[in-house]
Order: sequence, then structure tokens, then C-alpha cells
Amino acid sequence: MLGGGQLGRMMSMAAARLGYKTHIYCPEKNNPAEQVSYRATHADYDDIPALEKFAGEVDVVTYEFENIPVSTVEAITKTTPVYPNSKVLEVSQDRLTEKNFLNDLGIVTAPYEGVSSLAQAVDVLNDISYPAVLKTRRFGYDGKGQAIVKNGDDLIAAWQKLSSDKVIVEGFIDFDIEISVLAIRGQDGEIKCFAPVENQHKNHILDLSIAPARIDDEIRDEAIKQATKIIKEIDYVGVLTVEFFVSKNDPMLRVNEIAPRVHNSGHWTIEACLSSQFEQHIRAICGLPLGDVSFKGEARMTNLIGEDILKMPTLLNDPAANVHHYGKYEVRAGRKMGHVTWLYPDKI
Amino acid sequence: MLGGGQLGRMMSMAAARLGYKTHIYCPEKNNPAEQVSYRATHADYDDIPALEKFAGEVDVVTYEFENIPVSTVEAITKTTPVYPNSKVLEVSQDRLTEKNFLNDLGIVTAPYEGVSSLAQAVDVLNDISYPAVLKTRRFGYDGKGQAIVKNGDDLIAAWQKLSSDKVIVEGFIDFDIEISVLAIRGQDGEIKCFAPVENQHKNHILDLSIAPARIDDEIRDEAIKQATKIIKEIDYVGVLTVEFFVSKNDPMLRVNEIAPRVHNSGHWTIEACLSSQFEQHIRAICGLPLGDVSFKGEARMTNLIGEDILKMPTLLNDPAANVHHYGKYEVRAGRKMGHVTWLYPDKI
Repeated sequence: MLGGGQLGRMMSMAAARLGYKTHIYCPEKNNPAEQVSYRATHADYDDIPALEKFAGEVDVVTYEFENIPVSTVEAITKTTPVYPNSKVLEVSQDRLTEKNFLNDLGIVTAPYEGVSSLAQAVDVLNDISYPAVLKTRRFGYDGKGQAIVKNGDDLIAAWQKLSSDKVIVEGFIDFDIEISVLAIRGQDGEIKCFAPVENQHKNHILDLSIAPARIDDEIRDEAIKQATKIIKEIDYVGVLTVEFFVSKNDPMLRVNEIAPRVHNSGHWTIEACLSSQFEQHIRAICGLPLGDVSFKGEARMTNLIGEDILKMPTLLNDPAANVHHYGKYEVRAGRKMGHVTWLYPDKI
Repeated sequence: MLGGGQLGRMMSMAAARLGYKTHIYCPEKNNPAEQVSYRATHADYDDIPALEKFAGEVDVVTYEFENIPVSTVEAITKTTPVYPNSKVLEVSQDRLTEKNFLNDLGIVTAPYEGVSSLAQAVDVLNDISYPAVLKTRRFGYDGKGQAIVKNGDDLIAAWQKLSSDKVIVEGFIDFDIEISVLAIRGQDGEIKCFAPVENQHKNHILDLSIAPARIDDEIRDEAIKQATKIIKEIDYVGVLTVEFFVSKNDPMLRVNEIAPRVHNSGHWTIEACLSSQFEQHIRAICGLPLGDVSFKGEARMTNLIGEDILKMPTLLNDPAANVHHYGKYEVRAGRKMGHVTWLYPDKI
């Protein structure tokens, strides 16, 4: 496993249930994943000898976040299979490449254009028109590296703040609901999708997931159809997350972004589905048949961000609350410290 | 955690979900528990310096099997709390002490008598009468250290085989159903019990658990009442397992034995209950409120013994099967390699 965060932690536990031993590779000591894993290597992602040694000790490699250098994956692939493949990393690490890839597949996104100068951004905004969103093409997450611009003043301020010449301008989508589909593809090409989940954000960080999403059946089916198309086209193995915007006033379902990994918006599957997103990912990358995506019950998941984790004593008194603490040593504002899932088996 | 088997493994994973880091202490390397744990110490249970060092590095200690020497627990208790307490170990390590303890509480067991010679056994069998069961008082599990005797010839053969002068003679209970109750007691004295589960054995090893047990409500209530009495009287903290015999022709519910730990007959709680036996034990020993024992659905659990584990590829194709592999390196006949739980959420 490349990466040692909470996604790695939960994947490692899912792997253990199936009898696998997980070896964590990441630069950070005291990371959440290795607390529950068989072994750990602390080294940088560009440390080729360390990567080669690691690759020699494991049977299959996966990753828990998408900002792993492609060269890292390529170094490992020489001796050991890596799932998902590096192609999807290349695509998803660059917002412009990703949008091009999706649109080439006939998937609708927000209108967009890559720009490298303020003048070009001004130009592009004549077409896309305000309000719009400026994003750095690489290394953005949880709202970092992006800004909403409503006018020229915003644009100038945003351009200075982002301080990059690799920027994408996207039309602002005034959506009603954001949903995501967690799609899984096995080594044999079998594809399954969890039912779409509805996601609500606070301060650009996922706050609440409602599963299943409160959307019409046609939207549900269309979202699953599009996620299936994407995961198939990219020859993907593992769990792929596709985020969509749903708007009453917009006939099109628009993809916001894809993530080549298990996802915060899929944590509810641990309690609510027969196989969780984590187990599904492990099954896929290990060449096992995919698990069942049926519901045991409706679920709500909320993140415990920063000092939210201090609510844990209260939450532990709530019989329907499944509390997950990520074992992080330090509470920091904005840091994902854990999550809670409420399961309602009586609402199946 | 003293002990590194599958019970320790599953407790360690439950602890991790709540954010705790588990340190495994056991003599065996390559044990199932440390694969998913933060740290491990390999040392003998009578290695006092190693025990003291271990105790100094942890906040609370528990154990996953009852044949830990009482002196081990006492050495740790000098600096660090151990739950459950050593009193229950003393009681449950000796079948005679255990039966005396239970009968002193007014709990009914099989008729029994401790014997130290063949002549005494012959004598006792005049009262208890054939068929009966001879058991060594200490270190028996999964049918080891016991023999059914139907006549004098059996008795002589059993006496030679057991080769011990600390033996208990028990009347043979011709039961219809064996059930167990997993009782939990918190540090504050709060007590909860999972609904009784029905256990079927093969070759003296648990083969199938059916939850809830197919018994009358009065028997269910009486079993829970007795388990509650036992766990309270012994000032216990954690999960205590109480096994009962249920016979149509016997008005009494009889306790077979108690185990001061989570139990093979409680594995179904992982999928079928809001809090599993493992989470409940961790909550109790860490001073947290107990979790909810309600059912999400009916369940059946079967052990994967020895080469049963080779059925795993088939089981992974069964959408309702939750497969647990314990990560043991070697398949051996009679060895518990994993288990499977089938959950039926439509039968709540």
C-alpha cells in the first residue's frame, strides 16, 4: 500500500479480514495505516532502491491517494503489479487531462478551459462567463488550490493566490445535489457499482453522506451507467469514485471529478453494505470475485473533523452510531480524525 | 493483549476502529494477532522483566485465552489494570473450582465430583452413575483432556489416557441444544447480554452457531438471567461466555462451562449486531459505555477448520457470506483457520 492515511488504514483492515498481510509504504512515521498493518517502510516516493525493495517483498501494490508520482508506480510495475494502473493516475492528477479524458468519452462536465496566464483567463471567461471556478491543475484536494470568481477583482485576486501557470477555468455549476458513485472493476473485467450516495460539504470538506442519495431512479441509473463507462474505458482494477453534480435546472448530469481510489463518500458501505468499498477494492486488486453491493440498510455518515473527535464519548452512547477513530496522534483544525456511520436497518 | 490468536486479532481490529493501538504479548512469532496490531513482544508468560516492560508501555491489559498463568496477571496488575481480573482466571482454569463457584451461586450444572484416584472415581460413579464424563481439571479445550465413560472398561481406559490425579467426574447430560450467552460488564457495573446463540459441535469443536438460538422465550430469559448473575458476582469487566445445556426432559438449564473472554460462539456478532463481542470487550476494558446488542439480522456462523479454508474461493462468490481468514501460515488438521458468517437482514 502506497500511503499511510485513514483510507489505507481501513483497506488494511479489510485485507486482514480476508487473510492478507499489508505492508505500508509512506514517508510519514506514526501514520494511521501502519498501526493496523503487518509491516511498514518509511521512505520517499522517489527513493527508487526503497521502492524496489518494497516491491520485492509484496505480491500486489495499490495506493490510497492519487498524488503518488507516476514514476513511483512505474518503478514498482517493473517487478510487481500495481492496481489501479498508472494511466488513471496520469489522468486524475491533472484536472485538465481528466476533463479532456471524460469529454472524449462523451461524459459531460462543467465547461472548462486550461489557461497559463491571467490574460488568457480573462479571454476564456468571455466564453465561460462569471461566476466561474479557478483551480490549479495539480495537487488540489478538499477545496485547496481553488477559488470561486464572480468578477474581475475576484479573478485578479484568485490568480495571485493560486500563483501557478497551470490553471483550469471551469464554469460554476449551481447544483442542487452532489452525488458520487463508487464503481468497482475486477481483474476479469467484472463491474459493480454501489448505489449513488449524496454528499454535503462544509468548508469544502465532506461533512455528511446520505446513502442512498435522494434522487430519481433515472438519475441513479444514468450516474451508474456513466461510472461504468469510465471505469471500463480506463481498464481500471479496484474502486473508482466518480462525483456528479445534479441540478434541477440542468438536464445533464455533470461529472465533477474522479478519484482513483476508495473515497470518503464511501465509508458508509462498511456498515450498510454486504461488502464495503474497502473489501471490494482488496477483492479487485487481489483477483478475487467482487462482493455484493446490496444494502443492509440506509445510512448516514459524517466526518469528525478536528475537534469533532472530542464528541466521541457522546457518540459512543448512541446505540446506532458506528464510530471510527483513525488513531491520529494530534488533533488539528480541518484534519479528518474519524467518522461516524448511523445505520437504519428498519428502513431497508 | 496477552495472547496472539484469532480472538486477539479480532479484538485488535475492534480496538483500532475506536482509535486504540494494541500491543500483543505472546511467546509465538508469526501469530495472527500481531499482523493487525501496533506492536508485539515475544516472550514467555513467566518472563517477569518482559511482562513488567510490557505493562509499562500500555494503559490497560486484557487476554484472549484463559490458560494464562495467574502469576502473569498478578505481575502486570502491580502497575497496570488487567481486565477481566485474575479471580475469574483462577476459577475458570480449574473445572472443579469453576463448578464449585457456580453451584455456590445457586447455578445448576451437571452433577460432579473431584477425584484423584481410580478407586475414588469408581466410588463417585456409584452416585453419579454411567454414562459420565471424565475431564482433567485443568488445560482442557475443544474436547481435549476428556472422555465419555459408559462402563468400567471405559473408565479404566479413560483413567489411563487422561493420566492425571486431578480429575473431575461429571454426569453425562443428554442435552438437545447447547446454547451460549455472551455477557458484557462495564467498569461502571453496567451489564448487557447478547441473545443466546445455539452451538453445534463436530469432533468436539464448534462447527455451527445459529443466532438467535431456537429456544423458548422462557429459556432465553432464564439463560440471560443466570449469565447476568455470574458476571455480576465475579466483579467481572469485559465479555464473559456462559455455555448452557438445554434438554427437553430436564426442567433445569445447566451451565456447561464459562470462558472469561470473547468466544468462538460470538463471532456472528461482527455482522449481525450493532456492536460486536470484540467491540464490547474493548469498550468494557477501556471504561467506555457498552454498545448496543440488538440484531441487524439473523445469522449463521461456521468455522473453517483445517482444509475447510480451501473453500474460500467458493465462499467469496456467495454474496451473503462474510469470510474471515485468520492469516495463519500453515493449514493443519483441526486448526481454526477462519470462519464465515451468513447474515439474513430480511429475517429481522
